[in-house]
Amino acid sequence: MITDQKKKLTEKLIINKLLKKLNFKKTSTYNFQNDGSKIKYPSKKELIVSQDTLVENVHFFKNDTPESIALKSIRTNLSDILSMGGKPLSYTMSISINNTIDYYWIKQFTNSLYKEQKKHNFYLLGGDIVNSKTLSITITVFGLVKKGKLILRSGSNNNDDIWVTGEIGNSYIGLQILKNKITIKKKKIKDYFLKHYFFPSPPLVISQKLFKFMNSAIDISDGFIGDLEKLTLNNSKGALIYVKNIPFSKYSKELINNKIIKIENILSGGDDYQLLFTSKKIYRNKILHLSKKFKCKVSLVGEVNNSKKIEFLGLKLNIMKKSYVHRI
Amino acid sequence: MITDQKKKLTEKLIINKLLKKLNFKKTSTYNFQNDGSKIKYPSKKELIVSQDTLVENVHFFKNDTPESIALKSIRTNLSDILSMGGKPLSYTMSISINNTIDYYWIKQFTNSLYKEQKKHNFYLLGGDIVNSKTLSITITVFGLVKKGKLILRSGSNNNDDIWVTGEIGNSYIGLQILKNKITIKKKKIKDYFLKHYFFPSPPLVISQKLFKFMNSAIDISDGFIGDLEKLTLNNSKGALIYVKNIPFSKYSKELINNKIIKIENILSGGDDYQLLFTSKKIYRNKILHLSKKFKCKVSLVGEVNNSKKIEFLGLKLNIMKKSYVHRI
Repeated sequence: MITDQKKKLTEKLIINKLLKKLNFKKTSTYNFQNDGSKIKYPSKKELIVSQDTLVENVHFFKNDTPESIALKSIRTNLSDILSMGGKPLSYTMSISINNTIDYYWIKQFTNSLYKEQKKHNFYLLGGDIVNSKTLSITITVFGLVKKGKLILRSGSNNNDDIWVTGEIGNSYIGLQILKNKITIKKKKIKDYFLKHYFFPSPPLVISQKLFKFMNSAIDISDGFIGDLEKLTLNNSKGALIYVKNIPFSKYSKELINNKIIKIENILSGGDDYQLLFTSKKIYRNKILHLSKKFKCKVSLVGEVNNSKKIEFLGLKLNIMKKSYVHRI
Repeated sequence: MITDQKKKLTEKLIINKLLKKLNFKKTSTYNFQNDGSKIKYPSKKELIVSQDTLVENVHFFKNDTPESIALKSIRTNLSDILSMGGKPLSYTMSISINNTIDYYWIKQFTNSLYKEQKKHNFYLLGGDIVNSKTLSITITVFGLVKKGKLILRSGSNNNDDIWVTGEIGNSYIGLQILKNKITIKKKKIKDYFLKHYFFPSPPLVISQKLFKFMNSAIDISDGFIGDLEKLTLNNSKGALIYVKNIPFSKYSKELINNKIIKIENILSGGDDYQLLFTSKKIYRNKILHLSKKFKCKVSLVGEVNNSKKIEFLGLKLNIMKKSYVHRI
């Protein structure tokens, strides 16, 4: 009996048996039989694009599950589309695989992508499969925005509210656990943080409704502080942050209170993939209403000003590392 | 004195000092200050996309020059746009660099891209820079075709002519020289083949004029025979190939005549990046006229039929390896 694992991996096999289901039978992909694809979308929309590469031992660990690597790869890309006010349309993907990868691995990888695509209705357009010593995934993701409604990092004005979706720091704490920098005994709590590290969850659903109230946005990939700087300082603005309003999970709060982790490290840590955005004050109730309706945290964490610096109200912070950088 | 080589490589430095010149100041790239870009093009056109990854020690050698790696990366992608009948518009690029790469390397790499972009009028939309043990480049390239004029691999009909641009095999022979499988004493001849391996030259200019006579096309990346199969057998057709018409360089012919290399190996070798296409017989003179006008070889190498096999007229071939595959 030939098991899945034993199948010889050829490009043709991977395409026909594992990738083809991801094109959702869209004719513009030419069933992956052509040198490329056509990008089709309604003429009243604008097309946006973003590209991110994830590399083993840099963005994920070698032995992370194929599910985690798949969802991390696609969701970190989708979060860039969200930060521009877009709805995911489709993507291309290049997978560089090494000899630790077998048929079963790619099957789990593509099955995870399939479920994510079904959930949010976007499809694979094409891509490439190559051999490499280093496992890595490059995704180019396409999104649609209404004409003239693209959100930039640079759209904020003085007195705008600063908001953040979800919670900050869970993924960073998960990474510290994996690196043995923090020890957490209770399995439930440990798993809570690890889950956030392995499966980032950008606010794919609620953000589609929040867009109309945003005038600038960024996805938090390099850390709350680093990305806040890009949103404000790079736009010749400043920010006043209400520290008590920054959304930490109750487990994170426990670690902060017990001095197991420093709040400034959490705020400089990365990989949250939540949206940090600004909005006119008049939309405050609309945003809180959506937060309630979608059962998704959206927290008012500060205010834009023209100070050209970032101040934290309610805590003296000693920020050592401005922004988390992936070793480059 | 701080030399270029000594500069610490940060993502910001690479973007601001080396990559920014590649966006040709297009506003839709947001000066690389946003999470992504907008893809803009005339509404009477259709947008096509293709994505290829090149990996060190698979698609190029570690010590190949940055110029060669840059031009190979972009041109192998552009050739996919040509095979669909497209004109290059723009591209996104992810570079995975390791610690052998310094500022000067990336400067040469981006300067080569800049010259190529200027020549063919396309620009960089955005991308990613990451650290990896393995140097690799993923490009997603966008092209435009007139509405309804996209060329597929599957458009040929019985009795169509089969044509190929440029010459076949020079790059393959260059690779054999680098692998020490062939020894060539004369520096001039050796350099001739190496140049073709290091700098593939898809027919970027003449193909824009040839498109209107093509009904199917493919770029020869996996070898003349393998790609001919995709163009004919995969379309339930067959082909009769006139071996004496296959365009070899005079140096290749010498090697074949002196039995230093086998013709079947050349035809199964890869990396030509020339266009193999089919066309109605009535366009024969138009194509030959363009070939003369652009001083670019375009050779009539065969005929499409319904035999569902590929026959070579004028030579008994013992094809061992159907198609060159990059180790997957």
